[in-house]
Amino acid sequence: MRDFVSDHRWLSLNTATVRKQGDLAAIIDACARHGIRAIDPWREQVAAMGLDRAARAMRDAGLDLSGYCRGGLFASDVARRGEVRDDNRRCIDEAKALGAPCIVLVAGGLPQYSRPGSAVSKDVAAARAQVDEGIAEMLDYARQANMPLAIEPLHPAYAADRACVNTTSQALDICDRLDPQRTGALGVALDVYHIWWDPQLMSQIDRAGKDRLLAFHVCDWLMPTRDILNDRGMMGDGVIDIKRLRAAVEAVGFAGYCEIEIFSNDWWAKPMDEVLRTCIERHKTVV
Amino acid sequence: MRDFVSDHRWLSLNTATVRKQGDLAAIIDACARHGIRAIDPWREQVAAMGLDRAARAMRDAGLDLSGYCRGGLFASDVARRGEVRDDNRRCIDEAKALGAPCIVLVAGGLPQYSRPGSAVSKDVAAARAQVDEGIAEMLDYARQANMPLAIEPLHPAYAADRACVNTTSQALDICDRLDPQRTGALGVALDVYHIWWDPQLMSQIDRAGKDRLLAFHVCDWLMPTRDILNDRGMMGDGVIDIKRLRAAVEAVGFAGYCEIEIFSNDWWAKPMDEVLRTCIERHKTVV
Repeated sequence: MRDFVSDHRWLSLNTATVRKQGDLAAIIDACARHGIRAIDPWREQVAAMGLDRAARAMRDAGLDLSGYCRGGLFASDVARRGEVRDDNRRCIDEAKALGAPCIVLVAGGLPQYSRPGSAVSKDVAAARAQVDEGIAEMLDYARQANMPLAIEPLHPAYAADRACVNTTSQALDICDRLDPQRTGALGVALDVYHIWWDPQLMSQIDRAGKDRLLAFHVCDWLMPTRDILNDRGMMGDGVIDIKRLRAAVEAVGFAGYCEIEIFSNDWWAKPMDEVLRTCIERHKTVV
Repeated sequence: MRDFVSDHRWLSLNTATVRKQGDLAAIIDACARHGIRAIDPWREQVAAMGLDRAARAMRDAGLDLSGYCRGGLFASDVARRGEVRDDNRRCIDEAKALGAPCIVLVAGGLPQYSRPGSAVSKDVAAARAQVDEGIAEMLDYARQANMPLAIEPLHPAYAADRACVNTTSQALDICDRLDPQRTGALGVALDVYHIWWDPQLMSQIDRAGKDRLLAFHVCDWLMPTRDILNDRGMMGDGVIDIKRLRAAVEAVGFAGYCEIEIFSNDWWAKPMDEVLRTCIERHKTVV
């Protein structure tokens, strides 16, 4: 297991963690101040800055990327499939321009939440079939661009509205169907928040292996959780044994960034420098 | 699939659904008024009324039971194992006195939440091992009393505080380990709220089969869910395809009560008769 105590060279900041405190330019500056050498930016932040300007700013700051957030949201009315496909192709083009190592895919839940305006459905199995088809289609384009796709299983609490891919096993089943040769074009992004509860987790991390483990995200599950989306915890403040999970992914060869992604009304209300100082301290002590 | 349109003979009321509106005596009276012929009472409601008086009142009202809530909460400090064991034995004695067909087991989460005062732990695997041992021990006593135990997998959102048994597959694995002969002494209680999201659900219902399916509970998953414990929905108000899940359990032979269990600050604020009228109407139309 890598030493995280001495420095924070393997810390990456998912920019959603401080998205209320400043724009992407401000976040890039803050990373320089705190010696953070990688980020995972969100599309809307990049769009607000302008793709070329964002790419140049990251390059000038010497920032690595640990991913690009996010593609997906595949479930939709059939009539809107073209829109979904084009949106995801643009995402790949942007990720390429930014030099991202992979795109994080959030599958989408039921169509009315995944792509608002779509017809109301309670058929989660149908949504899952659409996700399969959507990833297959996106993968063709992604392979041409040499841009890996990382399916992120989300906690079952988000099955309806955000992602109907809810376990590591389910995500790996998709990988096996669409990339049986394990070419590296398709894998998973594992966030401890979404997966810590899973009784099959350790065996599925083994199953994923180094070549399917494209990203590893950390935060914490607070007790109580007051808001199902925006009350995620700073590492160490909740119930997740984060070190044990990091040990598990590193045991199968994961050697990438440990990306901090915290959606939290509490942390969004604090100054950016305080949040980053706390992230670095916790990265060294509890991650 | 049974006809639920014509009458509500297969409706059972989990008494937590109206626990804020009245005590057990008032609930029993209300069931008589509404032609509800089965309930699943909670231990604290029975204790408040007195076990003998509660048993007599249910008998006098001609009420069937669809279960008894609840045993379990197995994770605890080692020093408290005796307390847990004795508590669960008393639960079996009560269920027997009431004529319940099974006890619903909520496994308990991490020990500090399962049995408050226990040492703080983040080891969910250890909690699961304790649950296995606890059920094994309880099962010996339950077999002697001829009282089936129904393990209820709870939604992964409750893994820390309420139950570290979070999927049907996991619950059935426990059944297979502790009752490989499928004697009927151990099975599962499936609540649509906890299991609807599970990509393995249909295959696990098949795996359970009639002899492991001891109870079936309904409510709905609301969008948005504003409170992770007490914002469950009335059937039809959320995103769960309840009819499809009932069809699945009935396809493998489940022929018992369809038990309505709704933890909801909203529904607790309405008059008991209004809640029961709505339950009956939704039972006929969307369950």
